[in-house]
Amino acid sequence: MAITAAHVARSPRIRLGMVGGGRDAFIGAVHRIASRIDDQYELVAGCFSSNPEKSKASGADLGIDPGRTYESFAEMAMREARKKDGIEAVAIVTPNHMHAPVALQFLKRGIHVICDKPLTATLPEAKKLAKAAEASGVVFALTHNYTGYPMIRQAQAMVAAGELGEIRLVQVEYAQDWLAEPLEASGQKQADWRTDPARSGAGGATGDIGTHAFNLANFVTGLELEALSADLQSFVPGRRVDDNGHVLMRFKGGARGMLWCSQVASGCENGLRLRVYGTKAGIEWEQENPNYLWVTPLGAPRYRLTRGGPGTGAAAARVTRVPSGHPEGYLEGFANIYAEAARAIIARREGTPLDPAVTFPGLKEGLEGVAFVDACVRSSKRDAAWVALNL
Amino acid sequence: MAITAAHVARSPRIRLGMVGGGRDAFIGAVHRIASRIDDQYELVAGCFSSNPEKSKASGADLGIDPGRTYESFAEMAMREARKKDGIEAVAIVTPNHMHAPVALQFLKRGIHVICDKPLTATLPEAKKLAKAAEASGVVFALTHNYTGYPMIRQAQAMVAAGELGEIRLVQVEYAQDWLAEPLEASGQKQADWRTDPARSGAGGATGDIGTHAFNLANFVTGLELEALSADLQSFVPGRRVDDNGHVLMRFKGGARGMLWCSQVASGCENGLRLRVYGTKAGIEWEQENPNYLWVTPLGAPRYRLTRGGPGTGAAAARVTRVPSGHPEGYLEGFANIYAEAARAIIARREGTPLDPAVTFPGLKEGLEGVAFVDACVRSSKRDAAWVALNL
Amino acid sequence: MAITAAHVARSPRIRLGMVGGGRDAFIGAVHRIASRIDDQYELVAGCFSSNPEKSKASGADLGIDPGRTYESFAEMAMREARKKDGIEAVAIVTPNHMHAPVALQFLKRGIHVICDKPLTATLPEAKKLAKAAEASGVVFALTHNYTGYPMIRQAQAMVAAGELGEIRLVQVEYAQDWLAEPLEASGQKQADWRTDPARSGAGGATGDIGTHAFNLANFVTGLELEALSADLQSFVPGRRVDDNGHVLMRFKGGARGMLWCSQVASGCENGLRLRVYGTKAGIEWEQENPNYLWVTPLGAPRYRLTRGGPGTGAAAARVTRVPSGHPEGYLEGFANIYAEAARAIIARREGTPLDPAVTFPGLKEGLEGVAFVDACVRSSKRDAAWVALNL
Amino acid sequence: MAITAAHVARSPRIRLGMVGGGRDAFIGAVHRIASRIDDQYELVAGCFSSNPEKSKASGADLGIDPGRTYESFAEMAMREARKKDGIEAVAIVTPNHMHAPVALQFLKRGIHVICDKPLTATLPEAKKLAKAAEASGVVFALTHNYTGYPMIRQAQAMVAAGELGEIRLVQVEYAQDWLAEPLEASGQKQADWRTDPARSGAGGATGDIGTHAFNLANFVTGLELEALSADLQSFVPGRRVDDNGHVLMRFKGGARGMLWCSQVASGCENGLRLRVYGTKAGIEWEQENPNYLWVTPLGAPRYRLTRGGPGTGAAAARVTRVPSGHPEGYLEGFANIYAEAARAIIARREGTPLDPAVTFPGLKEGLEGVAFVDACVRSSKRDAAWVALNL
Repeated sequence: MAITAAHVARSPRIRLGMVGGGRDAFIGAVHRIASRIDDQYELVAGCFSSNPEKSKASGADLGIDPGRTYESFAEMAMREARKKDGIEAVAIVTPNHMHAPVALQFLKRGIHVICDKPLTATLPEAKKLAKAAEASGVVFALTHNYTGYPMIRQAQAMVAAGELGEIRLVQVEYAQDWLAEPLEASGQKQADWRTDPARSGAGGATGDIGTHAFNLANFVTGLELEALSADLQSFVPGRRVDDNGHVLMRFKGGARGMLWCSQVASGCENGLRLRVYGTKAGIEWEQENPNYLWVTPLGAPRYRLTRGGPGTGAAAARVTRVPSGHPEGYLEGFANIYAEAARAIIARREGTPLDPAVTFPGLKEGLEGVAFVDACVRSSKRDAAWVALNL
Repeated sequence: MAITAAHVARSPRIRLGMVGGGRDAFIGAVHRIASRIDDQYELVAGCFSSNPEKSKASGADLGIDPGRTYESFAEMAMREARKKDGIEAVAIVTPNHMHAPVALQFLKRGIHVICDKPLTATLPEAKKLAKAAEASGVVFALTHNYTGYPMIRQAQAMVAAGELGEIRLVQVEYAQDWLAEPLEASGQKQADWRTDPARSGAGGATGDIGTHAFNLANFVTGLELEALSADLQSFVPGRRVDDNGHVLMRFKGGARGMLWCSQVASGCENGLRLRVYGTKAGIEWEQENPNYLWVTPLGAPRYRLTRGGPGTGAAAARVTRVPSGHPEGYLEGFANIYAEAARAIIARREGTPLDPAVTFPGLKEGLEGVAFVDACVRSSKRDAAWVALNL
Repeated sequence: MAITAAHVARSPRIRLGMVGGGRDAFIGAVHRIASRIDDQYELVAGCFSSNPEKSKASGADLGIDPGRTYESFAEMAMREARKKDGIEAVAIVTPNHMHAPVALQFLKRGIHVICDKPLTATLPEAKKLAKAAEASGVVFALTHNYTGYPMIRQAQAMVAAGELGEIRLVQVEYAQDWLAEPLEASGQKQADWRTDPARSGAGGATGDIGTHAFNLANFVTGLELEALSADLQSFVPGRRVDDNGHVLMRFKGGARGMLWCSQVASGCENGLRLRVYGTKAGIEWEQENPNYLWVTPLGAPRYRLTRGGPGTGAAAARVTRVPSGHPEGYLEGFANIYAEAARAIIARREGTPLDPAVTFPGLKEGLEGVAFVDACVRSSKRDAAWVALNL
Repeated sequence: MAITAAHVARSPRIRLGMVGGGRDAFIGAVHRIASRIDDQYELVAGCFSSNPEKSKASGADLGIDPGRTYESFAEMAMREARKKDGIEAVAIVTPNHMHAPVALQFLKRGIHVICDKPLTATLPEAKKLAKAAEASGVVFALTHNYTGYPMIRQAQAMVAAGELGEIRLVQVEYAQDWLAEPLEASGQKQADWRTDPARSGAGGATGDIGTHAFNLANFVTGLELEALSADLQSFVPGRRVDDNGHVLMRFKGGARGMLWCSQVASGCENGLRLRVYGTKAGIEWEQENPNYLWVTPLGAPRYRLTRGGPGTGAAAARVTRVPSGHPEGYLEGFANIYAEAARAIIARREGTPLDPAVTFPGLKEGLEGVAFVDACVRSSKRDAAWVALNL
């Protein structure tokens, strides 16, 4: 019965701003809940929409001081940076193409960044942002939230400890169906920008969810990609980005993998699934039932580790709130990224060393994700030729 | 993609106090997270332990103003009631025998109560508390949290709409194993008070989890118990309360049921499971995978409703935060009780009518729960004779 | 990759007759397939129906010598007993009330009996048959087929070896829905006789499937019943036998249990499920996925044993035909009863000692089953009073 | 409650011979059981091993007339063809490289062939055999047994009826772990020949199980492959054939797919799994739980069809023996291939037209399978270049 944040003698809450996430947005609300769960942040400012009226209205909905509900993110960065009690961190939850412009405004003023994924819409932009962020010294967290799930932490620890032996196979998939029909033609906000290369980037499904799958596989296995071969499709007539991707992967050291991402797999909701097989054992995990990690030893019965249950270790326990059998979900996993980032931000604030156990995705993972999309698109254009990430 | 709390124009947060829930406590931390998820409460005062030192230290951990961290709950009630910005509601998370004394102090001062279950340790006490609370006019919410799960709301709505036909069978069970050994002998805090009749009440497993199972069955089916026959056991030598209960149930109108609760079922974590079968269809639900509701029609294939997915209705949607495939868990279900109570408290504060869709367990459910334990104990002493609830 | 029957140097096939099982019958065909799977029987004679025309036609369908397709079972017994190459064993697949009269004709002539369950329709009849069969010295197998499943054998072996510790709880259920409506009114043959007390016995669901559940629990745990308390219902108006039973059980030595059998649980197909919990571990098994046995240790992760897979022992292996991952099903489990009976019959024929590992249900289990139905009916009439089996 | 073979007025049993399948063999025993389940074959002759002693001993085990237990398959073909009551069909269960030589001996004498898969070890040989078999006019059945599963028949029928809409995606996999270590070095018979290109063919996992996966996808979808891109691996040092294959597929008409076959996926037993997604719905099926077919409509809840249960059609019903909830398994699926072939053989024997519903894999599927292996090997050698089947 591990209970993390609640019982730790606590530093004052981090003052948080948000860019994006106004009325009708999905992911902004998720970030806000995630920031609240462990009580380490307080949302005090925002520019919630590129439409000033909507930004104001959204701020009012959220109980934000009208004086700190901004009409532009540039103004917000400038004015918050000047305040004595200005925001310490900003959450960026805009469409992809705005991640870099927004982040640059804040990080150059020393404001920490918690940015939705993918890092940017294009690879050159990602490189530029990464360089600038690196130079600025701010904490930069990228919400590849699925790495926040305790059982994914457990899986990573098991791989690292050699419990699977040498990894041979990585089978990862992320199947949805919400774009099985031309939803963008209906004006639905999410579908609209996600299928627009100018705002989403060159990848559709690959950018939106393929990056999650790729990140998850990397996170758990620690393997480095050598080359990939991608066959991308746009099944829905008129669609301007891929809505399905089939990818073969070769990792350094000899492991091989397959990655499938789809937004046209009828009847699939949020089917992120990872399977890794090594010489001694495998592991299997599904996001829709995230509290379980199946371990499949060679020559012994498969067993089910449960979050908080017997056989799980410290890596999972430190991001666990309630006992086994009391399911945690998507929001708690997301909150773990916020909680880990908070530990880094507070260490920075207080000038204390950061606990080496603290783990969250950042610039490296962001660059890899955008490079993954770039490589998929390049490979697919060359008839699924093998290409390396352009990092 | 329904997102509830975040986008509703919001009233100022409810000022919340807490009694119990200090360091080492489990359920207090759960209540605090639940109160934060939808941003409708702010914890501003507390008496976190009967030990004054521990209360202070716990308050400091939580960032509570030391001036509002109290040494006794009576003092807290008195002083908070006098403050202009004193607490509007109190969360009671003490052992069972303290629920009534604490609640009475607050409700008589017009402070709303959110109380952990069961309502009290004894039936006379429950009746007295219910009467006093009724008279006081405060909002009284009892955290039978499992009724907060969206798919349980869905199940209730389906039964009420007649989609199952006439209910014939109610099979409910709640199996755990955490008391399979004499944990109380080790001094573990939870086990210590839960197996002590003076603090827990006459029921052990029946009181701790049997009440949840009974409440869940009542909530979903709307049936009223006619009589029960209970065979209770204390398998662990020396245990002073039951650790397993087998109960037959007869409902008014002819439906029949079985209830099993156990804290000695080796390998079971938090196995609350409800199955209801009617003349047209059945439903099956498991707490450990709460985002699914299985519907089992007579003469047609069984299908799986998912929280947020196609085929679910308004009752589930209004307590849903993230889309289907993005699992919500125990804390979100718990938070739904807090969110529903907040709606009632705010309606009271603002003098507005309460949305009739708002649903949360309260005094009636609390009385039924304590009466259930009382009936089980009475029946079991008479060799599983049929007895009615003494309401 | 254990392959049983096929590679054992084989004795000549057992000459088998059948009583019942004509056109439109269900269980007769199952017995015939079960008898063929391991190639140890040859069906050479039969009286397939009480209707002579139908018996003849059914025999012709099956390629039986018309001279050995009989018009009455008494004639069949008499004539086959006189033949030099007459049948060595008879399979009885009639409605329940005919089991005893038929069996008596054959066993008194030294012909071995393989009888469908329950043993008889009434308890006095069961006692009389058991006595006669005992005296005759024939092999008497009762097709409580679910004890033929390899993973049930595995479960029994684990309990016997103490791997579960001391057994505390037995939760067994058998839920179907095929009688959720008054199917007997439609003239459907199965429903017709199974709901007729004169042919089926005093128990409906309790006799048809409750006996299987009871037998399974006994087989796996080896526990002996001390008393039961049963609440039986006939939900379908006009039904003359129970269609649902709720039963509490007390076993000698202190274990307790619940048994639920139902033929009105809408959407349930053949939901026989056994869970047993001891001081060290539990086991969980479901007939609809019979190749898995879940083991749930106290304090360690649950694991899945698979038929033929790692961690399973000799008791399962000797009744296993194909490797793990290649599912065996209902017919193979049924065939295991036939195969075990064949070993006993051949040992008798050849005068060799019987391998002590050979295990199949017989008169003892048959008596217990009929006594179980009798006890349920007696208890239910006395408002679920505790009663013992009248053995 | 459909019961097929048992109640159909029956033709005399088909006289069957077997080549291969002696002591220690696995698949031979499976063929024998499969041939017996529906009572349409009688095994009367065999050449069970290339070792004459072993052939004799195996025949004796099986109760075969010693005069019809042969030392060579050529002698068997010659002598059986001359007998008046010689075999009508031969089951070939040798290693792959012997399929063609054996089959040619029998088919040229008009003896029907039931051959294990793959058709042959090499593509030229497959073409030659197909041509000869075609010319001979015999019934030629290839035991791609997984197409015998009723729910696979159901899936095929649903695709054919347009219930899935236009097919977009085919995700098929077959994961095992039995060759995760160099088992061939231990002398284990199965591993020995299956990893020897001279006996198994150029493909290892691709030949043994990849062909099953490919066949299953083709069978269900009816799609025709346009090109594939394969990345094959031999993970186990020293292994002479692939033990893992990753394959991308493009089908005529625009559908795309992925195929994964592996014999080194630690902890996987016999993980054949097919998922097909169309514009209207998807279907999901797993061989280890073959009685279920999941249907995943776009915009409606997923539902579970069960073998024999409501919502399944004629295609499944005609190969179903026992009611829903009574699981059928691998042997029954295998037996369905035998039963379908029997219908063809008997139609030939009796000169009656063949029921058009009769469906079993034969030469076309055999050629496609061997061409699939050939294409995988060619593609992989060219760094996963796209290649077409060389048919």
